[in-house]
Amino acid sequence: MGIFGIEVDVTNLINIGLKIGLLILAFIIFIPIGKKIIERTINRAGSNQKISESRVKTLEKLLVNLFSYVMIFVFIVMLFAIFTIPIGPLLAGAGVLGLAIGFGAQGLVSDVVTGFFLLLERQVEVDDYITAGGYDGIVEELGLRTTKIRSFNGTLNFIPNREIIGVANHSRGNMRALVDIGISYDENIDEAISLLEKVCAEFQQDERFKDGPNPIGVQGLGSSDVVLRVVGQTENGEQFGCQRDMLKRIKEAFDEANIEIPFPHQVNIQKD
Amino acid sequence: MGIFGIEVDVTNLINIGLKIGLLILAFIIFIPIGKKIIERTINRAGSNQKISESRVKTLEKLLVNLFSYVMIFVFIVMLFAIFTIPIGPLLAGAGVLGLAIGFGAQGLVSDVVTGFFLLLERQVEVDDYITAGGYDGIVEELGLRTTKIRSFNGTLNFIPNREIIGVANHSRGNMRALVDIGISYDENIDEAISLLEKVCAEFQQDERFKDGPNPIGVQGLGSSDVVLRVVGQTENGEQFGCQRDMLKRIKEAFDEANIEIPFPHQVNIQKD
Amino acid sequence: MGIFGIEVDVTNLINIGLKIGLLILAFIIFIPIGKKIIERTINRAGSNQKISESRVKTLEKLLVNLFSYVMIFVFIVMLFAIFTIPIGPLLAGAGVLGLAIGFGAQGLVSDVVTGFFLLLERQVEVDDYITAGGYDGIVEELGLRTTKIRSFNGTLNFIPNREIIGVANHSRGNMRALVDIGISYDENIDEAISLLEKVCAEFQQDERFKDGPNPIGVQGLGSSDVVLRVVGQTENGEQFGCQRDMLKRIKEAFDEANIEIPFPHQVNIQKD
Amino acid sequence: MGIFGIEVDVTNLINIGLKIGLLILAFIIFIPIGKKIIERTINRAGSNQKISESRVKTLEKLLVNLFSYVMIFVFIVMLFAIFTIPIGPLLAGAGVLGLAIGFGAQGLVSDVVTGFFLLLERQVEVDDYITAGGYDGIVEELGLRTTKIRSFNGTLNFIPNREIIGVANHSRGNMRALVDIGISYDENIDEAISLLEKVCAEFQQDERFKDGPNPIGVQGLGSSDVVLRVVGQTENGEQFGCQRDMLKRIKEAFDEANIEIPFPHQVNIQKD
Amino acid sequence: MGIFGIEVDVTNLINIGLKIGLLILAFIIFIPIGKKIIERTINRAGSNQKISESRVKTLEKLLVNLFSYVMIFVFIVMLFAIFTIPIGPLLAGAGVLGLAIGFGAQGLVSDVVTGFFLLLERQVEVDDYITAGGYDGIVEELGLRTTKIRSFNGTLNFIPNREIIGVANHSRGNMRALVDIGISYDENIDEAISLLEKVCAEFQQDERFKDGPNPIGVQGLGSSDVVLRVVGQTENGEQFGCQRDMLKRIKEAFDEANIEIPFPHQVNIQKD
Amino acid sequence: MGIFGIEVDVTNLINIGLKIGLLILAFIIFIPIGKKIIERTINRAGSNQKISESRVKTLEKLLVNLFSYVMIFVFIVMLFAIFTIPIGPLLAGAGVLGLAIGFGAQGLVSDVVTGFFLLLERQVEVDDYITAGGYDGIVEELGLRTTKIRSFNGTLNFIPNREIIGVANHSRGNMRALVDIGISYDENIDEAISLLEKVCAEFQQDERFKDGPNPIGVQGLGSSDVVLRVVGQTENGEQFGCQRDMLKRIKEAFDEANIEIPFPHQVNIQKD
Amino acid sequence: MGIFGIEVDVTNLINIGLKIGLLILAFIIFIPIGKKIIERTINRAGSNQKISESRVKTLEKLLVNLFSYVMIFVFIVMLFAIFTIPIGPLLAGAGVLGLAIGFGAQGLVSDVVTGFFLLLERQVEVDDYITAGGYDGIVEELGLRTTKIRSFNGTLNFIPNREIIGVANHSRGNMRALVDIGISYDENIDEAISLLEKVCAEFQQDERFKDGPNPIGVQGLGSSDVVLRVVGQTENGEQFGCQRDMLKRIKEAFDEANIEIPFPHQVNIQKD
Repeated sequence: MGIFGIEVDVTNLINIGLKIGLLILAFIIFIPIGKKIIERTINRAGSNQKISESRVKTLEKLLVNLFSYVMIFVFIVMLFAIFTIPIGPLLAGAGVLGLAIGFGAQGLVSDVVTGFFLLLERQVEVDDYITAGGYDGIVEELGLRTTKIRSFNGTLNFIPNREIIGVANHSRGNMRALVDIGISYDENIDEAISLLEKVCAEFQQDERFKDGPNPIGVQGLGSSDVVLRVVGQTENGEQFGCQRDMLKRIKEAFDEANIEIPFPHQVNIQKD
Repeated sequence: MGIFGIEVDVTNLINIGLKIGLLILAFIIFIPIGKKIIERTINRAGSNQKISESRVKTLEKLLVNLFSYVMIFVFIVMLFAIFTIPIGPLLAGAGVLGLAIGFGAQGLVSDVVTGFFLLLERQVEVDDYITAGGYDGIVEELGLRTTKIRSFNGTLNFIPNREIIGVANHSRGNMRALVDIGISYDENIDEAISLLEKVCAEFQQDERFKDGPNPIGVQGLGSSDVVLRVVGQTENGEQFGCQRDMLKRIKEAFDEANIEIPFPHQVNIQKD
Repeated sequence: MGIFGIEVDVTNLINIGLKIGLLILAFIIFIPIGKKIIERTINRAGSNQKISESRVKTLEKLLVNLFSYVMIFVFIVMLFAIFTIPIGPLLAGAGVLGLAIGFGAQGLVSDVVTGFFLLLERQVEVDDYITAGGYDGIVEELGLRTTKIRSFNGTLNFIPNREIIGVANHSRGNMRALVDIGISYDENIDEAISLLEKVCAEFQQDERFKDGPNPIGVQGLGSSDVVLRVVGQTENGEQFGCQRDMLKRIKEAFDEANIEIPFPHQVNIQKD
Repeated sequence: MGIFGIEVDVTNLINIGLKIGLLILAFIIFIPIGKKIIERTINRAGSNQKISESRVKTLEKLLVNLFSYVMIFVFIVMLFAIFTIPIGPLLAGAGVLGLAIGFGAQGLVSDVVTGFFLLLERQVEVDDYITAGGYDGIVEELGLRTTKIRSFNGTLNFIPNREIIGVANHSRGNMRALVDIGISYDENIDEAISLLEKVCAEFQQDERFKDGPNPIGVQGLGSSDVVLRVVGQTENGEQFGCQRDMLKRIKEAFDEANIEIPFPHQVNIQKD
Repeated sequence: MGIFGIEVDVTNLINIGLKIGLLILAFIIFIPIGKKIIERTINRAGSNQKISESRVKTLEKLLVNLFSYVMIFVFIVMLFAIFTIPIGPLLAGAGVLGLAIGFGAQGLVSDVVTGFFLLLERQVEVDDYITAGGYDGIVEELGLRTTKIRSFNGTLNFIPNREIIGVANHSRGNMRALVDIGISYDENIDEAISLLEKVCAEFQQDERFKDGPNPIGVQGLGSSDVVLRVVGQTENGEQFGCQRDMLKRIKEAFDEANIEIPFPHQVNIQKD
Repeated sequence: MGIFGIEVDVTNLINIGLKIGLLILAFIIFIPIGKKIIERTINRAGSNQKISESRVKTLEKLLVNLFSYVMIFVFIVMLFAIFTIPIGPLLAGAGVLGLAIGFGAQGLVSDVVTGFFLLLERQVEVDDYITAGGYDGIVEELGLRTTKIRSFNGTLNFIPNREIIGVANHSRGNMRALVDIGISYDENIDEAISLLEKVCAEFQQDERFKDGPNPIGVQGLGSSDVVLRVVGQTENGEQFGCQRDMLKRIKEAFDEANIEIPFPHQVNIQKD
Repeated sequence: MGIFGIEVDVTNLINIGLKIGLLILAFIIFIPIGKKIIERTINRAGSNQKISESRVKTLEKLLVNLFSYVMIFVFIVMLFAIFTIPIGPLLAGAGVLGLAIGFGAQGLVSDVVTGFFLLLERQVEVDDYITAGGYDGIVEELGLRTTKIRSFNGTLNFIPNREIIGVANHSRGNMRALVDIGISYDENIDEAISLLEKVCAEFQQDERFKDGPNPIGVQGLGSSDVVLRVVGQTENGEQFGCQRDMLKRIKEAFDEANIEIPFPHQVNIQKD
């Protein structure tokens, strides 16, 4: 079967086909077993060594992910072996093909390098609420190449690690609850602040608050209102709920005390 | 026919022409047959092995796409063979031409590498609703080089895989339905919230909702209204319909209870 | 005539001049003939093989374009031959000049690679309405290096193919017609929707519509109006006409039924 | 005169000075003569061969520009010859200096490559009105390295060709004249459209219009007006004048027919 | 166990496994001891040498961080030694793999180089309030590769040093307190300024102020007010508190003196 | 004095110190003399050869600038000679250091290449009013590496030539004076235009105007006014003055003729 | 102590430790002495040679900075010598490590090259008020690698020199003071201008003004006011103070002459 000078050897083809089949079979059997073993080992080690649950989860998902990549690498190496293509010289060569592949693979290396440091420096753990690479949400999995973030609207975002340039981790330590409230230019500022102090005193009992809240003074003179600011430190994850509760309570307290939260004002001059 | 020192051999030209004709004919006959075989094999395997339908579709389209590229590659190799141009040294060389081609082809390699991981990590499947590379819509085909996304306005977008830097997949798990509703500063917040709770109770029966909806409190104090937020989890794909139904129902409930959804307010001061 | 050590041979100069003249003449005669042949061959093949007209146009323009580039390439090679400058070593060398040329030509290679895939993957055909590289309009010609797009305002845009990163093709399949209409907060939503359904029923007879149109509910609560949305699928290219007709018909229906489409509202509070 | 080991040969210096003087003189005499010859040849050829005037202008300016660059190149080569610095090895070398120059000159090569294709593909001719590289205006000169565009405010813009990524050429074919006109929500749409048709009928006689103008329907429902659109095709360059005339005529026709073009509307609700 | 030509030596595998286990154990024991030693040495040296506390903190965290990286490096080198892979040639080679790694690691080198200069030039110390790389907050740790910044809302940001292009350090020297206050167009500017001077005189007693505050005149004529500016220098970190106090005091002083801080003005002309 | 294996030769050090001192002295004496000579030569040549004054200024500043750079280059070469470091191999080598320097110096080469073409193509001369690289103002000096632009607010901007991508030169030819003036929807357009023609007739006598000004018609229908446009060509540099004079004169003419220039309009609908 | 094949020589370790200690000690003693010497030499030279004070400051800070970098360089070279690692081959090599370092260090070289030209071309001196690299303020120190700018709000900004692409130096020559003032459409423009001329005449006596100020005419017709512009040249640094004084004086003059500075106007049309 020599067409255009290319000779094809049929028995050789069948031989190769069989080998590939065997290889695929071996991997289909081996991979799930490998993953199970990793998961069990990690979980047992985690419960023995008193490592935090989220760290265990991070490690488990990472190792399974790492295992998959190693398996794919082994698979490709074996495939090359079946076709008796030597991999070494291919990787060492520097021709046009090498150049193209080198540049193409560059992103892959960056992914792995960044992923490695994300893990090593414990910048992110599974279940952290982070903002990175333009996405924000809860980390679902930290892989060598890709990080999965679940947005609050339910979307699952896949981000190549190299895109994670800076990480803003919102799950490390107490968070700030901040409320800006505008009062009328006609109100007495001192009265409003002392009322805010009373409301804050109630919240200081709330154990979600680690520090404050306290009114810190006049933040600005708006076009229609004098803006007062209240700031406190809450437990991680409770900041939004606390802010909502403070907004409601302050609004009600101002209503009771007849302190006006003003609408936009405009002075009209009539001309004929 | 020697012009300017370039000798042209006519019989050789005819010979080459015939060979090219034969090659094209062979490919025109072979390619559709190959595609049919792939489609049937995948479909049969899919129905036997109980793989999800969208996975089968993804694989089928991918394999047909992969098959096309392999055929083009084989075609080009054979064409070079007809002209007796050796490909190996061409690819290994590193002259000016090689440099230009290496850089030009770099994008192609990036496309294939990214496409490979999109598939391997199951970031995207056919029929998923995703946002990627500045486009959003339903995935119609996942190719090695290009991904086709159908926008909701009917446009078909072709995106080179390398442009797909992060993928936001909106078809993985429950989605959030969120309604922000403004009430007048004069209304009683507690009454409004208890009314919202009644409305939410109705929707909690709705089986499209997996969690909630529930009013979570005062989201903010707007310039003319107190903003209340209602949040729930719905089945994937039902979030927009649910939001629309909630908007309608809440509006009607507020009308019945005479709770005002306020227009923008302004305080006018007359001056002469 | 030896100035500063550079010897100029007059007879040689005349000889070269004559050769260049002959070369230009040959090309001036040959090129239009070649183009005519290509156009005729394609057109005949197209009408015989029942290929769609726009595909025939695409191929015809592409082959003429390709022919021009091959001719220029041949011309340059012959010019170098006349001056007896060897091209091979020039392209294989890797000095400063080679580096500069390699980088400069890199864009050219990217253009051709991208153009090749635009055609191969049938992303674009002549007469398609597309958005690509920041321009949008009707494709007039698809070349190896440049794509010509005619904007709706009559401008002809030339885009190097490498700038066409993603293609949004608006000529593939049915398009969505979408109308958002605001009604007053005082109107009954159900009445308005049933009126929209009546209007939609009329349009469902219209054969430009492939699916719908149908009112899908309350899209949002605006600052002054309740926004209702109507969505339908139309034949490709008819979406804008359909939207215009729907806008007119819905406006008239609302007028007849005395449903108000509200102007912006504002609540004024007088203060002295 | 040996300072710090550097020996300076005075007679050699004088010799070199003289040679440079001669060289400059030769160029000062030769360049204007060369330019004149080019201009005359092109003009004569243009009037004989019936080539369009703007093409002749483009070619004339280009060839003069090309001639200047060739002269500069020759000048530099001769200068190097005077100092007996060999150019070949300098360009073939790949040391630090070569690297720096290679990168620095890369922009120059890109300019020439892009300029070559701008001309070859006839994307731009002198006197075309184009938008390119962030500038827009009338092309004054197309050079190998730089394109000169005269803005409408009189500014002369110099753009390196490599910055001309996509070209929007507004001087190729008919242009669209488009007028959007808002009518009051209280007006009868059909009456307004039939009035627009009457006005359009007048303009259809105007020979500047190649197609239309015609009213195409309700473009949108604005916050205070119903927007009607009129579209037509005019001769190239007449689109702005036509639009101005249509605006004036439509405004006057609406005034005569007492159809109101509304000011922004607002509904005011008085509250105490 | 020779599969596909790859021979696996079991005893060798066990041997390697044991060595890796020993290596990990050695590091688990050694690293915490090393860190403790560093911390104690630095703290003792700091208290002896009278180095500022924040400098001691910076150095302590940096050295611990540096120690970790050195340990990881040693660990990797030893791991390679166990597998008897020579590292030298690997790093000196320049094949495809080398290229990919070289580019991938480039970011790492930039991180370390930038980090080194951040420390050397004392641009940043632990506990400084800085803005860098798009984040702002208090520096928690300065590492060779990463800087940790705690935002005021509690978020902990990890920034690779190479992203820190310019540093704005807000903890070096006195800070400006600036208040812009608008008065009515009808007020006497001189009176308002003399009142501001009285208020400023009170604050000049305040020891938080290092210079001023003083009113510096009419900053602008706004659409509804004449804007006066007051500027002063405060101790580092006190600028926001001072501004808040000044805002409150000036507002109260203006109220007492019946100087109006105007709302937006508009002239209305009634037309029928 | 051998410390850590580095032997330092004192007499050699003194010798080198003396040589450096002599070198600096030679340059301090020679440079001002060289600059004076250049300035005089250029000025004399300029007045003899009737070259435009701004061209003379450009050349003078450029040559002085070029002279400085040549001197610095010579200085560095001599310094290397004193330390007996061979420059040739250093520049030809391609090690790590060379790479770093090559990339670092790349910007310098780009500056010089761009500067060379800015001058050669006479894109900019001293005293031209240009916009380039994000700055605009009057050119004060054109150097090989840097261009100095004096902004109208007095700031002196230094721009590396490579940043000058496109140049908008506002000092080449006549400039446009353009006035857009809004009239009330109730005014007669023809009357307003004939009044504008009368005003324009006055300005056409003004010799600052090279063409026009003339009213060209209705530019648009604004939300509250009909916009008329007047356009003319003025001498370079006079466009802003002319526009100011036209604005004043048109405003006064409209006042005399009782043509209203309308304020923003709004239709108010009262609702209870 | 041979672990995993790595032999560690204890006496050698102690020897190296001692040498490092000695080295550090030598530098700790030598560096402050060196800096003192530089500062004194510069200051003495500055007062002898009548160099401007800011130039002296610039040079002093630069030389100290340069001295630090040279010391660090010497320190690193000696450290390598202690470990007997040859630096030459390391820098000349071109393996993976070299590549990574070369790219990483590229920024450093750019910093030094840019810094060198900033100084050489005297673009910036200590105490100049500049805008560069997105920061603006007073220059505190010009280093080879970094420039320190003190913002007006007290922040100290560290900018790597390579980020300083263009420099806007606000401390070179007179600055413009510009006041735009709006008058009512009902006012007589000539009267207002003559009043402005009177006010300007007062300021022309002020020696802070180098030229003007003068009213230059009608700058524009705003939506509610006719805008007049006054422009003058002031001493460097006085422009903001002058503008503030002019604003105050013009406002008072207009009040006295009863010329109205109008609020935003709106025409209201009542509709039922």
